[in-house]
Amino acid sequence: MALPVTFLTDYGDADEFAGACRAVLAQLAPESRVVDISHAIPPGDVRRGALALAAAAPYAGRAVHLAVVDPGVGTDRRAVVIETADGSYVVGPDNGLLSLAADELGGAVAAFDVSGTALALDPPAPTFHGRDVFAPVAAHLACERPAEVAGQPIDPASLEKLHLPEARVEDGVVVASVLYADNFGNLVLSARQDETPSAFTPAQRLSIVATDGDGGSHSAVRGRTFADGGGGLVVYDDSAKRLAIALDGGSATERLALDRDDEVRISVAP
Amino acid sequence: MALPVTFLTDYGDADEFAGACRAVLAQLAPESRVVDISHAIPPGDVRRGALALAAAAPYAGRAVHLAVVDPGVGTDRRAVVIETADGSYVVGPDNGLLSLAADELGGAVAAFDVSGTALALDPPAPTFHGRDVFAPVAAHLACERPAEVAGQPIDPASLEKLHLPEARVEDGVVVASVLYADNFGNLVLSARQDETPSAFTPAQRLSIVATDGDGGSHSAVRGRTFADGGGGLVVYDDSAKRLAIALDGGSATERLALDRDDEVRISVAP
Amino acid sequence: MALPVTFLTDYGDADEFAGACRAVLAQLAPESRVVDISHAIPPGDVRRGALALAAAAPYAGRAVHLAVVDPGVGTDRRAVVIETADGSYVVGPDNGLLSLAADELGGAVAAFDVSGTALALDPPAPTFHGRDVFAPVAAHLACERPAEVAGQPIDPASLEKLHLPEARVEDGVVVASVLYADNFGNLVLSARQDETPSAFTPAQRLSIVATDGDGGSHSAVRGRTFADGGGGLVVYDDSAKRLAIALDGGSATERLALDRDDEVRISVAP
Repeated sequence: MALPVTFLTDYGDADEFAGACRAVLAQLAPESRVVDISHAIPPGDVRRGALALAAAAPYAGRAVHLAVVDPGVGTDRRAVVIETADGSYVVGPDNGLLSLAADELGGAVAAFDVSGTALALDPPAPTFHGRDVFAPVAAHLACERPAEVAGQPIDPASLEKLHLPEARVEDGVVVASVLYADNFGNLVLSARQDETPSAFTPAQRLSIVATDGDGGSHSAVRGRTFADGGGGLVVYDDSAKRLAIALDGGSATERLALDRDDEVRISVAP
Repeated sequence: MALPVTFLTDYGDADEFAGACRAVLAQLAPESRVVDISHAIPPGDVRRGALALAAAAPYAGRAVHLAVVDPGVGTDRRAVVIETADGSYVVGPDNGLLSLAADELGGAVAAFDVSGTALALDPPAPTFHGRDVFAPVAAHLACERPAEVAGQPIDPASLEKLHLPEARVEDGVVVASVLYADNFGNLVLSARQDETPSAFTPAQRLSIVATDGDGGSHSAVRGRTFADGGGGLVVYDDSAKRLAIALDGGSATERLALDRDDEVRISVAP
Repeated sequence: MALPVTFLTDYGDADEFAGACRAVLAQLAPESRVVDISHAIPPGDVRRGALALAAAAPYAGRAVHLAVVDPGVGTDRRAVVIETADGSYVVGPDNGLLSLAADELGGAVAAFDVSGTALALDPPAPTFHGRDVFAPVAAHLACERPAEVAGQPIDPASLEKLHLPEARVEDGVVVASVLYADNFGNLVLSARQDETPSAFTPAQRLSIVATDGDGGSHSAVRGRTFADGGGGLVVYDDSAKRLAIALDGGSATERLALDRDDEVRISVAP
């Protein structure tokens, strides 16, 4: 049976870009299933794309992961395939987009430069490698055909890595930045659950200072669910194991006037 | 052959939430097809989700219907499976979201509490039961495995019901509230076609008073299609058999300054 | 094996309209795969729908193309099936929406009026032929059943044609209008690549006058990729072989204050 192809881009849902890629996949890998992850990554936002891909990819089992957030399309950035420890493949531009997902899938065990792949549609449009380069390569891999045919082996150590902002704990204060706000207005922070294990205890009253937001101090509670906020702010471990802030029944983003890359300081309430 | 899984949430299209659930379905029920209904239900809007699910589900034939609009995720609200008279299953939180669809599918003939299901991914994230509880249960059912394995039988009479606002006819005036505005700006009303059978006759001139909107009185026509409005307002029976108001070539929502839950009064034009 | 069904509408992603059609397809053509092209065509924008369909359809191989942008639903506009030279079918309203795609697929070799098709769901809702007329017809064709059963043969020459605005070259100046702006703010122009072959040379410095925009003159470069703009404006051939304007790292639409149908004049910089 063919492998499924997960599919993530910043193409948006209005234009036919994602659809044209799905059409290529349907034609070249008719037995393979397409699993849309998201096509509404903000245009060119490689970091948001990398985080979304890494959060979803492990749930597909063995699969081909096709991801395109590619502001450098048509330049000399490489087009690559990464083979991961679990036997999956990650396909896309070598700009860091793929690195977090590859890590989540057990790390890269092999990599291939497919920039000049013979599998490309002829001639590839300089601004649409998703359709003309990456989709045909993903279809090829989904049919369990060898990656060696798609491109030349390269050293996995040469792949671009994405560096996320770090969080720190200073005198019991978690200082973190906002990675992004999700559909519900929840603020996902740069602090990983395993970096802040002892920071706070269940149901503890906390204080959030939105350094780059409204500047004020806000009461919150350490909780597990949105409802734990009791109509107020709750600091919880999100489903991708990051520290996050929600407003029960509302939008934490609006309440704190925070957005991407803004800093917050979270401490035990005095 | 596996059953198809229809899929509706309020996860939005930007984040990877719906994609992660699709990935779980692809891994656990590789022969089953996912039929996306909508993932842009307004966050937490159980009523809009219930109406959309009920409108689409009957068209899938025998299927598993996976629906997640779940502001109480992680609390003691139950996670349930409803088996319906047509042999379908409806899976999601027991907060009323599933009730209208179950009715449309012939009513519940059995129900199961899957809150503590052994099929859950381990450990389930407290804020993402869609991925970790509901999707695995839906995959299990799509593979025609027994619902008894997914959870404990419960009395279908104990399931939460959604109560829609009612419409009434007073002295020939239909008084109804706006359930929602659709993508075209059409206003879908709380009046069902079968509740207002004799209210108006074809092509009759009507008067709409937007009590909670601009307050004024607007001319309209009783019609069957948008074009019957002749560039103006038309009162028609929508595709889910509810009374609705459209503006031919425009947005009735904007014209009448009406939104969800606002009241309208429709009568024969004087 | 069943043919895939590509699917394009202006139904939006919020309501259940596209989902209900997918449900019909899943029930009536369970072996056929649905390839979503876009459901966010601006409401009623037949031209944008036609361009998107024509750009994506050729990539699916032999397929059924289901497209619904149908402001005249329920009126006497015809519902049609077009059989194209490559053995594909295009299904939808006869309002010009299908014509560009049919051309891209080698042209119409046969056509059928399915307005009163016996395949329709009973009774078809006057405002939702996508679900009740077009989807059942598309499912029928995807199962390789004869088009003659779906409707009556009509003369392909009687099909509605979409007429796009034209571009012209005057004294070395390309005068074109904006067909649409895409997700990235790129402006797609009415000038086809093959109509302006000798207009400009690679890396040439150009001047763009946004006649209907800010009225000013803007420097640009003739390039192949977005990055060729070097942070500025670039005039390139887009992936559907039309002349287009991008702003490297930004939105050309915002920079030039241009939108649909606005005129631009592009010439060699003095």
